[in-house]
Amino acid sequence: MSKVDIPGYTYGTAAVPQSWLTLAELEELKKSVLFGDDDVAALRESLPHLSPLVDEILDVWYGFVGGNSHLVATFGRKSDGQPDEAYLAAVRKRFGQWILDTAQANYDQRWLDYQMEIGRRHHTTSKNRTDGVAAADVVPLRHLIALIVPITFTLRPFLEKSGKPRVAVDRMHQAWVKSVTMQTALWASAYVKRSDY
Amino acid sequence: MSKVDIPGYTYGTAAVPQSWLTLAELEELKKSVLFGDDDVAALRESLPHLSPLVDEILDVWYGFVGGNSHLVATFGRKSDGQPDEAYLAAVRKRFGQWILDTAQANYDQRWLDYQMEIGRRHHTTSKNRTDGVAAADVVPLRHLIALIVPITFTLRPFLEKSGKPRVAVDRMHQAWVKSVTMQTALWASAYVKRSDY
Repeated sequence: MSKVDIPGYTYGTAAVPQSWLTLAELEELKKSVLFGDDDVAALRESLPHLSPLVDEILDVWYGFVGGNSHLVATFGRKSDGQPDEAYLAAVRKRFGQWILDTAQANYDQRWLDYQMEIGRRHHTTSKNRTDGVAAADVVPLRHLIALIVPITFTLRPFLEKSGKPRVAVDRMHQAWVKSVTMQTALWASAYVKRSDY
Repeated sequence: MSKVDIPGYTYGTAAVPQSWLTLAELEELKKSVLFGDDDVAALRESLPHLSPLVDEILDVWYGFVGGNSHLVATFGRKSDGQPDEAYLAAVRKRFGQWILDTAQANYDQRWLDYQMEIGRRHHTTSKNRTDGVAAADVVPLRHLIALIVPITFTLRPFLEKSGKPRVAVDRMHQAWVKSVTMQTALWASAYVKRSDY
């Protein structure tokens, strides 16, 4: 899979600083979200089913954000408050790749480092910089955490399209809930003092 | 229900400062977690089933925390690093009441204010103060967020004990997932600058 054609997608490159967390601390975080080898397998099981549906999934997520003025506000231009369509489009490409990366579940040092970068891109630290836009300064932390729910709830029907038995859909869905919650916990690092994190 | 016999349980009292958030912002947060009137009903539906099981639920949650050294560390005494049993016991009483408060789902200004107080009690701002203990300074934000998963996953079997049809259990469980995620987003306020929150 070629990834180099996604602007700003720096996963695995030297442009990404090392994470605050060690891999041992990542293992602790996995324990906190009950994430084990069976979840890695379940995420990878979801990959071939979700891959052809990435655009449909993004349509649902973008529809949700677009339908909530307090959420689409983070894409709002400082000049006139209107959503920056080019910014929305640039993020969408990386968001689609994020679905694939989450399902591939190679949660190693490079992945850990890139999660911290994703966090910074939601925070004033480096929001807007990747895409060269002048939009809202920050994705408020409370909504970043809240979005665990719509992201995972709306994914379930796409997992059901796999035609797999309910127990398999449950397994894939639970692995997704664990991973998205864990990633949100990683992204939150950009918002707090290291000693509080 | 008498609540005054729980030390440190200040919900609804003048000791709790007003929240940063307005009720209008709470409504936005509800939208972000897809929380509606049907979820209020589902939480209240769960109340009579969970009330007699509070101690069993707490046994599961305390067993999980106790079985993970990186989690029980937040109850560790500064003097010798061992878990402070009196602290664990004091928190347990309020944690049990939290189950009932969540299921009662009266998410008004007093509730909102008390969520911010719960957040402060996890953060260096006022952790340990309520119980007069000398334990770890902070519950790390990453684990506070991560605990959404074990809290909600382990609650499901208790909801199943209601004997209700699967669709009703699903409805109650989803309402719990939404509420716990929303509350975690509220508690996180103690960790960040208001402008980032």
